[in-house]
Amino acid sequence: MGGRRRIFEILEAARPGDRPSARCDLFLIALISLNVLATVLESVPAFGVPHGRFFHGFELLSVAIFSGEYLLRLWSCVESRDPRFRSPVRGRLRYATSWMALIDLLAVLPFYLAAIVPMDLRFLRVLRVLRIFKLSHYFSALDVLLEVVRKERHAFGAAFLLLAIGSLFAASGIYLVEHRSQPEAFGSIPAAMWWAVVTLTTVGYGDVTPVTTLGKLFGATITVMGIGMVALPTGILASGFSEELRRRQRIYGAEMRSALADGILDADEEAHLEALRRKLGLSEEEVEGLGDERRRAAASSRDDKCPHCGEGLVL
Amino acid sequence: MGGRRRIFEILEAARPGDRPSARCDLFLIALISLNVLATVLESVPAFGVPHGRFFHGFELLSVAIFSGEYLLRLWSCVESRDPRFRSPVRGRLRYATSWMALIDLLAVLPFYLAAIVPMDLRFLRVLRVLRIFKLSHYFSALDVLLEVVRKERHAFGAAFLLLAIGSLFAASGIYLVEHRSQPEAFGSIPAAMWWAVVTLTTVGYGDVTPVTTLGKLFGATITVMGIGMVALPTGILASGFSEELRRRQRIYGAEMRSALADGILDADEEAHLEALRRKLGLSEEEVEGLGDERRRAAASSRDDKCPHCGEGLVL
Amino acid sequence: MGGRRRIFEILEAARPGDRPSARCDLFLIALISLNVLATVLESVPAFGVPHGRFFHGFELLSVAIFSGEYLLRLWSCVESRDPRFRSPVRGRLRYATSWMALIDLLAVLPFYLAAIVPMDLRFLRVLRVLRIFKLSHYFSALDVLLEVVRKERHAFGAAFLLLAIGSLFAASGIYLVEHRSQPEAFGSIPAAMWWAVVTLTTVGYGDVTPVTTLGKLFGATITVMGIGMVALPTGILASGFSEELRRRQRIYGAEMRSALADGILDADEEAHLEALRRKLGLSEEEVEGLGDERRRAAASSRDDKCPHCGEGLVL
Amino acid sequence: MGGRRRIFEILEAARPGDRPSARCDLFLIALISLNVLATVLESVPAFGVPHGRFFHGFELLSVAIFSGEYLLRLWSCVESRDPRFRSPVRGRLRYATSWMALIDLLAVLPFYLAAIVPMDLRFLRVLRVLRIFKLSHYFSALDVLLEVVRKERHAFGAAFLLLAIGSLFAASGIYLVEHRSQPEAFGSIPAAMWWAVVTLTTVGYGDVTPVTTLGKLFGATITVMGIGMVALPTGILASGFSEELRRRQRIYGAEMRSALADGILDADEEAHLEALRRKLGLSEEEVEGLGDERRRAAASSRDDKCPHCGEGLVL
Repeated sequence: MGGRRRIFEILEAARPGDRPSARCDLFLIALISLNVLATVLESVPAFGVPHGRFFHGFELLSVAIFSGEYLLRLWSCVESRDPRFRSPVRGRLRYATSWMALIDLLAVLPFYLAAIVPMDLRFLRVLRVLRIFKLSHYFSALDVLLEVVRKERHAFGAAFLLLAIGSLFAASGIYLVEHRSQPEAFGSIPAAMWWAVVTLTTVGYGDVTPVTTLGKLFGATITVMGIGMVALPTGILASGFSEELRRRQRIYGAEMRSALADGILDADEEAHLEALRRKLGLSEEEVEGLGDERRRAAASSRDDKCPHCGEGLVL
Repeated sequence: MGGRRRIFEILEAARPGDRPSARCDLFLIALISLNVLATVLESVPAFGVPHGRFFHGFELLSVAIFSGEYLLRLWSCVESRDPRFRSPVRGRLRYATSWMALIDLLAVLPFYLAAIVPMDLRFLRVLRVLRIFKLSHYFSALDVLLEVVRKERHAFGAAFLLLAIGSLFAASGIYLVEHRSQPEAFGSIPAAMWWAVVTLTTVGYGDVTPVTTLGKLFGATITVMGIGMVALPTGILASGFSEELRRRQRIYGAEMRSALADGILDADEEAHLEALRRKLGLSEEEVEGLGDERRRAAASSRDDKCPHCGEGLVL
Repeated sequence: MGGRRRIFEILEAARPGDRPSARCDLFLIALISLNVLATVLESVPAFGVPHGRFFHGFELLSVAIFSGEYLLRLWSCVESRDPRFRSPVRGRLRYATSWMALIDLLAVLPFYLAAIVPMDLRFLRVLRVLRIFKLSHYFSALDVLLEVVRKERHAFGAAFLLLAIGSLFAASGIYLVEHRSQPEAFGSIPAAMWWAVVTLTTVGYGDVTPVTTLGKLFGATITVMGIGMVALPTGILASGFSEELRRRQRIYGAEMRSALADGILDADEEAHLEALRRKLGLSEEEVEGLGDERRRAAASSRDDKCPHCGEGLVL
Repeated sequence: MGGRRRIFEILEAARPGDRPSARCDLFLIALISLNVLATVLESVPAFGVPHGRFFHGFELLSVAIFSGEYLLRLWSCVESRDPRFRSPVRGRLRYATSWMALIDLLAVLPFYLAAIVPMDLRFLRVLRVLRIFKLSHYFSALDVLLEVVRKERHAFGAAFLLLAIGSLFAASGIYLVEHRSQPEAFGSIPAAMWWAVVTLTTVGYGDVTPVTTLGKLFGATITVMGIGMVALPTGILASGFSEELRRRQRIYGAEMRSALADGILDADEEAHLEALRRKLGLSEEEVEGLGDERRRAAASSRDDKCPHCGEGLVL
C-alpha cells in the first residue's frame, strides 16, 4: 500500500520539499503545454502539413502518458484524504465522475474514439487544446476566482436569464422594424439574435447595424440596455470579492481573538495564525488591525479592571 | 370558497409538496416556452410559411389557455395573503392594475385587438415573444437582482440623465465638426445621435465614425467619457449588491443576537434562524461568524465572570 | 429688501409649498427644454430652413428671458444663505465667477458676442444646446453622483493620467509596427492615437485595425490593457459609492445613538432623525438596524445593570 | 558630504518650501514633456522631415541632461533614507537595478546603443516616448492606484490566466467552425486568436466576424464569456479599492483610539492625527466618525459613571 500512497502523493500537486512529486508536476505541466502548442501549430497549414508525422508521433506519446496518468490516478485515488474516494469500488466510481477525472478522461478519450468510430480526424485534433484544462491540477491561483464565481452562481444565473430575455426582446424588436429594409441580416428572429447578443454585450462588431430611423432608435435603446447587462455581473463579482475577503478576515479575526483569550499570544499560536493567514490567502496588510482590540487589551490591562474587586481583566 | 382558495394555490408558484400546483406551474412554463419558440420559428420564412396553419392552431389554443388563466387569477386573487387584493371589487381592480396582471393581460390582449381592429397581423405575432415575461411568476432568482435595481432607481435615474445630457452634447459637437465632411451620417443633430449613443455605451459599431482631425479629437474625448458612462451604473450596482448583502446579514445577525440573549440557542431558535437564512437568500458561509461574539458567550459563561472574584460581568 | 429676498427665493429651486417659485422653476425648465429641442430641430435641414424665422424669434425671446434671469440672480445673490455671496460687491463678484453663474452666462453670451463680433452664426446656434446644463439648478438627483465623482477626483485624475500614458504608448507602438503597411491610418503617432484611444476604451470601431502579424500581436496586448483602463474608473466608483453610503449611515447611526443616549426616543427626536434620513438620501431599508444595539437597550434594560448598585443602565 | 546630500534632495521630488528643488523638478518635468512632444511631432512626416536638424539638436541636449541626471542620482543615492541604498558599492548596485533607475537608464541607453551598434534609427526614435515614465518620479497620485494593483496581483494573474485559456478555447472553436468558410481570417488557430482576443475584451472591431450559423452561435457564446472576462478585473479592483480605503481607515481609527485612551485629545495628538490622515491620503470626510465612540467618551465623562450610584463604569 505504501507504493500506492507514494504514487498518489507524486501525482498530486507537490507538497513543499517533495522533490520527486515537484518534478513529476513540472514534467506534466510541460507536456500539457507542449500538447497545446502542438495543436495550435498543427493548425497552421504551412507548419502542420510538412511536419505531420512528427505531430502524429508526439500525439501517440502524449496519449500514452496521459492514459497512464489517468489509470494511476484512478487506482491511487483511494489514498485521498477525501473520505468519499476511499472505498475500493464506489470510491473509485465517485472519483471517476468527479470534475477533475472527467477533464483527464476528456484529454485522451477522443483519441480512442477516433480509433474505433470513423470520424473526421481534423475535428478531433483541435479538441486536444482542451487538455489545457488539465493545468487546473496545478494552479491554485484560480481557486479564489472560481470560489467567488461558484458562490454567486445564483446571481449569475439570474443575470444570464435577464441577458437571454433581453436578447430575445432585442432580436424580436429589431426584426420587426428592420426585416423589410435588411432581409439578409434581420430576416428572422434567430438571424436578428446575432445583432442582439453582439450589441447587448457591448462588443458591437458593426457587421450588421440598423439603417432605418426606427431601427436606430430601437438600437440605441438596446445599446443602453447593454450597459446594464455588462454592469450586472461586474457588480455581482465586485460585491462577491469584497464579501469573500471580509469572510476570510472574519475567520482570521475570530481565531486571533480566541488565541488572545488568555491575554498571551505564544509562539505556537503565532505560528498557527500565520499558517491560517497563508491558507486563507490573506496578505499581511489585509490582516493588520484584525483582533486589535484584544491585542491592545492583552498588551496593557490598564483599561480593564473588574468593577467589583478591582483586579485587572483581559477582555 | 374552498375551491377558489385551491385554485389560487394551484395558480401561484407551488409550495413544497403541493404536487398538483407544481404540475400546473410546469405545464404553464412549458406552454410559455413553446409560445416563445413558436414565435421565433414562425419568423423564419422557410419554416413559418409552410407550417402556417399549425402555428395558427397552436396560437388559438394558447390564447384560450392564457385567457382562462387570466380570468381564474382575477377571480381568485381575493384569496391572496396580500390584504390589498382581498375586497371583491376594489381588490380585484387593484390586482388587475398590478404589474403581474398587466403582463398576463398583455399576453392575450393583442389577439383580441386583432380580431376587432383591422391591423397588420405580422406585427402582432412578434409581440407574442413578450409572453416570456409571464415566466417571472415562477423564477424567484431574479428577485434579488430586481430588488437591488429597484433600490438604486434614483441613482440609475441620475446616471441615465447624465447619459442623455452626454449624448446630446456628443451629438451636437460631432455635428458641428463633421456635418460638412459627412453630411449623410452627421447631417443633423438627431442623425448624429446614433453615433453619440453607440460611442458613449462603448458599443462602437464603426458604421459611422469621424474622419476629420477635429472630429477624431472630439470623438476620442467622447470615447473616454463613455468609460465613465459605463462605470457609473456598474459602480452603483456593485455598491448596491454589497449593501443588500450587508443588510441581510444585519437582519440575520440581529435575530441571532436576540436568540442568544438568554445565553441558550434551543432547537426552536435554531430552526427559526435557519428558515430566516433561507428566506434572506444567504448561504451558510455568508452567515458564519455573525453573532459570534454572543454565540461564544452563550457556549461558555466562563468569560462572563471575573476570574478573580467570580462575580458576573456584563461585557 | 423684502422684494429682493422674494425674487431670490423664487429663482432658487422651490421649497415645498412655495407655489409661485415652483411655477417659475417649471417655466424655466420648460423654456430650457424647448431651447434644446429648437437647437436640435433647427439642425435638421428639412425643418430648420423653412421655419428659420420662427426659430430666430424664439431665440430672441429666450435670450431676453435668460438675460433677465441672469441679472436678477446676480442682483439677488446677496440674499443667499451662503455667507460668501452676502457682500454687495465682492459677494456678487464671487457669485459671478461661481460654476452655476458661469453656466447661466454661457447660455446667453454667444448671442451677444455674435452681435458684436462677426462670426459664423451656424457654429453659435449649436452651442445653445449647452443651455441644458442650466437644468442642474433644478435636479438634485445628480448631486450624489457628482459628489462621489468629486471626492474621488484624485483617483480619477490618476486613472486619466494612466489612460493618457497608455494611449501614447499604444499609439507609438502601433505606429512603429504598422506605419509601413498602412501609411494612411498609422502614418504618424498623432494619427495612430485615434486607434489607440478607441481601442483602450474598448469602443473598437474597426475603421482602422492592424493588419500585420506583429501589429495584431501588439494590438491584442493593447485590447487587454483596455480592460484594465475601463476597470479602473469602475472600481474607483464602486468603492466610492460604497464609502459614501457607509459614511451617510455612520452619520445617521451616530445621531441615532445620541438620540437614544437617554434611553428614550421621543417624537421630536424621531422627526429629527426622519428629516436627517431624507437629507442624507438614505432609504428606510438602508437605515434599518443602525443604532440597533442602543435601540434594543432602550427597549429593555434587562441586560444592563450597574454592577455596583444593581440599578438598570441605558448604555 | 553636504553637497551630495543637497544634490540628492534637489533631484528628489521637492519637499514643501524647498524652492531650488521645486525648480529642478519643474525643469525636468518640462524637459520630459518636450521630449515626448518632440517624438510625437517628429513622427509626422510634414513636420519631422523639414525640422530634422532641430529635433536632432534637441535630442543631443536632452540625452546630455538625462545622462547627467542619471549619474548624479546614482552618485547621491547613498544619501537616501532607504537603508538598502546606503552602502557605497552594494547600495548603488541595488539602486541601479531598482525600477526607477532602470526607467532612467532606458531613457538614454537607446541613444548610446545606436552610436555603437548600427541599427534602424527610426525605431529608436519612437522609443523616446517611453521617457514619459520618468514622470513617475514626480506624480504621487498614481501611487494608490498602483498599490491596489500590486496587492491584487495574484487575483489579476488568475484573471489573466483565465483570459489566456478563454482566448485559446475561443480561437480553437472558431477555427473549427469557420476555417472552411473564411480561410483568410480563420485559417489557423493563431490567426483566429486575433478575433478571439478582440471579442473577449469586448472591443469588437468587426474586421473579422463569423459568417456561418454555427460560427455565429459559437461567437455569441464567446461575446457573453467576454462580459465575464471584463467583469473579473473590474470586480477585483472595486473590492481592492474598498479594502484599501478600509485598511487606511482602520490604521487611522486605531491611532485615534490610542490617542484618546487617556480621555484627552491634546494639540500634539491632534497634529499627529492630521499628519497621519494626509499621509494615508484620507479626506476629512473619510475619517469623520472614526473613533467616535471613544471621542464621545473623551468629550464627556458623564456616560462613564453609573447615573444611580456615581461609580465609574468601563464600557
